Amino acid sequence: MKEVRVFDTTLRDGEQTPGVSLTVEQKLIIASALDKLGVDVIEAGTAIASEGDFKAIKEISNAGLNAEICSFCRIKKEDIDASADAEADSIFMVAPSSDIHIKSKFPDKGREDVIEMSVSAIEYAKERGLIVEFGAEDASRADLEFIVELFRNAVSAKADRLTYADTVGVLTPEKAESIMKRLTSEFNVPIAIHCHDDFGLATINTVYAIKAGASEFHATVNGIGERAGNAALEEIVMALEFHYGFKTSIIKENIYETSKLVEKLTRIVIPKHKPIVGEYAFTHESGIHTSAIMRDTSTYEPITPEMVGRKRQLVLGKHAGRASIEEIMKKLGYKADKNQMKEILVRVKELGDKGKRVTDADVKTIIETVLQIKQEKKVKLEDLSIVSGMHIMPTASVKLRINGQEIIEAATGLGPVDAAINAVKKAVSEFADIKLVSYHVDAITGGTDALVDVIVQLSRGDQIVTARGARTDIIMASVEALLEGLNMLI
Amino acid sequence: MKEVRVFDTTLRDGEQTPGVSLTVEQKLIIASALDKLGVDVIEAGTAIASEGDFKAIKEISNAGLNAEICSFCRIKKEDIDASADAEADSIFMVAPSSDIHIKSKFPDKGREDVIEMSVSAIEYAKERGLIVEFGAEDASRADLEFIVELFRNAVSAKADRLTYADTVGVLTPEKAESIMKRLTSEFNVPIAIHCHDDFGLATINTVYAIKAGASEFHATVNGIGERAGNAALEEIVMALEFHYGFKTSIIKENIYETSKLVEKLTRIVIPKHKPIVGEYAFTHESGIHTSAIMRDTSTYEPITPEMVGRKRQLVLGKHAGRASIEEIMKKLGYKADKNQMKEILVRVKELGDKGKRVTDADVKTIIETVLQIKQEKKVKLEDLSIVSGMHIMPTASVKLRINGQEIIEAATGLGPVDAAINAVKKAVSEFADIKLVSYHVDAITGGTDALVDVIVQLSRGDQIVTARGARTDIIMASVEALLEGLNMLI
Repeated sequence: MKEVRVFDTTLRDGEQTPGVSLTVEQKLIIASALDKLGVDVIEAGTAIASEGDFKAIKEISNAGLNAEICSFCRIKKEDIDASADAEADSIFMVAPSSDIHIKSKFPDKGREDVIEMSVSAIEYAKERGLIVEFGAEDASRADLEFIVELFRNAVSAKADRLTYADTVGVLTPEKAESIMKRLTSEFNVPIAIHCHDDFGLATINTVYAIKAGASEFHATVNGIGERAGNAALEEIVMALEFHYGFKTSIIKENIYETSKLVEKLTRIVIPKHKPIVGEYAFTHESGIHTSAIMRDTSTYEPITPEMVGRKRQLVLGKHAGRASIEEIMKKLGYKADKNQMKEILVRVKELGDKGKRVTDADVKTIIETVLQIKQEKKVKLEDLSIVSGMHIMPTASVKLRINGQEIIEAATGLGPVDAAINAVKKAVSEFADIKLVSYHVDAITGGTDALVDVIVQLSRGDQIVTARGARTDIIMASVEALLEGLNMLI
Repeated sequence: MKEVRVFDTTLRDGEQTPGVSLTVEQKLIIASALDKLGVDVIEAGTAIASEGDFKAIKEISNAGLNAEICSFCRIKKEDIDASADAEADSIFMVAPSSDIHIKSKFPDKGREDVIEMSVSAIEYAKERGLIVEFGAEDASRADLEFIVELFRNAVSAKADRLTYADTVGVLTPEKAESIMKRLTSEFNVPIAIHCHDDFGLATINTVYAIKAGASEFHATVNGIGERAGNAALEEIVMALEFHYGFKTSIIKENIYETSKLVEKLTRIVIPKHKPIVGEYAFTHESGIHTSAIMRDTSTYEPITPEMVGRKRQLVLGKHAGRASIEEIMKKLGYKADKNQMKEILVRVKELGDKGKRVTDADVKTIIETVLQIKQEKKVKLEDLSIVSGMHIMPTASVKLRINGQEIIEAATGLGPVDAAINAVKKAVSEFADIKLVSYHVDAITGGTDALVDVIVQLSRGDQIVTARGARTDIIMASVEALLEGLNMLI
């Protein structure tokens, strides 16, 4: 089993995602997580780019990590100096290689000049004691013969590794394979592949380059990066190990926690459908499937979620089948006969047909209606008032009726939503020890009059329930969700 | 150039995404958009699944669209009847084909039973006048010889088309190619490929199946679906046409608007990095790149955004270079000398190093500070009060100072944020005609005390600016963003 080196560029290419910028402290936290994940190289930033990047590279280099710490460079003396001064172990130094990139970066120069500048830069970097990974930018749109010539000169100048960069994501697996075969037959130094995902082919192009002899790949956690992003580390690792029999140093059980950390600090939300790390990757809804999954998890799962440090989720919805409804009935201690069960299923589907998400609280209401269990809502909202503003401390007062008893409470908060939730929590605190496990608002787009969808998770002891509130008013939506959940638990 | 058929399953597999459910009206809107996009087949739902699905299929079938309208079926008489009663043109009828799926769905039956049930079901469906596309579910984990046998019987029973389903996304391009070569050599009816994206390989597996002779593919808009989602229609179309010389009936200029419609109605946000349709796919931030893009758009773009009905976006950020700053200075009518420019760049980078997004308003503040242009803020917030609640109409009062003049206004709204924004809009209305183009709040996760990040886009005539507000209080964050933007425009 051939071992493939993992060059992580989350902190460099990943940080070039529009809107993303990380502080020195955040970079240090991510670098430690990447080291724990087992990557071989951490490209920590571009030392010349800013004071913050310089400092981040220096601190990460001195943090005692196992990984090689790398700084991005152009073929410029000042870039190399900054990288060496920041005490990086290595540089990833790129030269433009397609005519379009050469013309754009050095309008007065040509291919021969690029070779000359590259050779001087590599020689200078070696003098400064750096490991040099030399990359051809936009190589996939360049003349392959020129790439070979450029690399030959780079190797003569003592570059330690070479990188073929598919800068605008136009490679196909066929091309990646044939080009990498040629390159690995020409050179003895390790060759890396660097892919972008403009056509959704970054993962497979990387895999095919490795099949053809590349010994290292560049990738970012969650595939973040410019435009459609870089190749996603987690997808490549799983494809290489699961399908193609390669080995990497990645500790797969740490993938999910690293992914969530990068999401949190870059604020680039992991797509729900992202393979391996997306919220839905191991979530099952539709009725037929969940009952099959309950019998045998492999029916609809290619790998177990535990392999990548995750857990399986079963959620309710329009397609909810008997099995998931029975699960909830058991929890609530209810029993339904055959006809009642059929009716419950129909009503859950009806709710879904209306375009609504189906939460635990919705299913409880349906079950109780069908079984004619007259459950007075135990917690009722009778009144709520909010004041807030620029010179006004956000304050909420609430009147609840809990088990028939009237409770009035008031609370302040960091904002009006926080104040309202605090007031409700205070009011119910003597009835039950309930925790707000999570509070989620879907991104609001459109206008200030858009529907705000709030989903809360509440816990009481071992029991966890979800509930929703949907209003154009974010405060009322939040309180509604909270009360729906409370009524499940009290 | 071989033409490939596009079988769209956004309304069936796509709607099985956890949390997604569409009303009849919404399904009809999406079906019309898919028809306009040029798909060959619209799988509109599962007629047997619910009253809503039945109605949706019936209405879409009678909407006079060009596409073939299809209903999903199991190999069951009642499923076929429901589909025919809903007046679908065709059914996509699947039989379990791997031993694990056969065992899970028909615990007491074996492979021979599946063949028998499939044959009866196909014969019955043909009697009912339906076009039958017969699919082998979980085919990629089944014995290929059994698939061939199953398909042979299906063709004898007069199935019109066959589908090989990679239900849990475990195919590789190599396997897709060799299997499809075998199948297309055995059968004369059209064969389709249906892929899932669990390893991020759905696009390429589909492409390789088509290279090997498949003449149709299944896909969803934006790649929505269960778990990691289905193969993404837009990626496959672009890869097939751009890289592999195939043709489809898709009108590519309609891709983006269809993608946004599906996002809006399913509420599954398009990932920022999604190839072709993601917000960032044609967005450029980092300094070096934007200046290159301004000279020649192909430097960092494999295809033009216009090809898929989009526009290029240039955004500011930590890596903003001279070119983008100069663009803003020109707009504001300011001039900086070399040293001032250097200082401006340093400060923009510093802001980025602090982990902040850099908006137009931020850059303006930096420029004015460096150029020592003492720009009193033209619009200042002097006071803001909000009342809201259960029996209280959301109402906001605001005191602004605009060009030295004190303006007091009050307004109501659908919620407290809407009320506050309405009050500010009212107050500034006599000074300038300003429109709120977009209002965006990042998803809020964590707790009710989390930082809320509001980004607004405002326009005045041709000019559009972005501005941000970030507070734990959503109302104050919204007003802050609005005022920052107003100060750019007034």
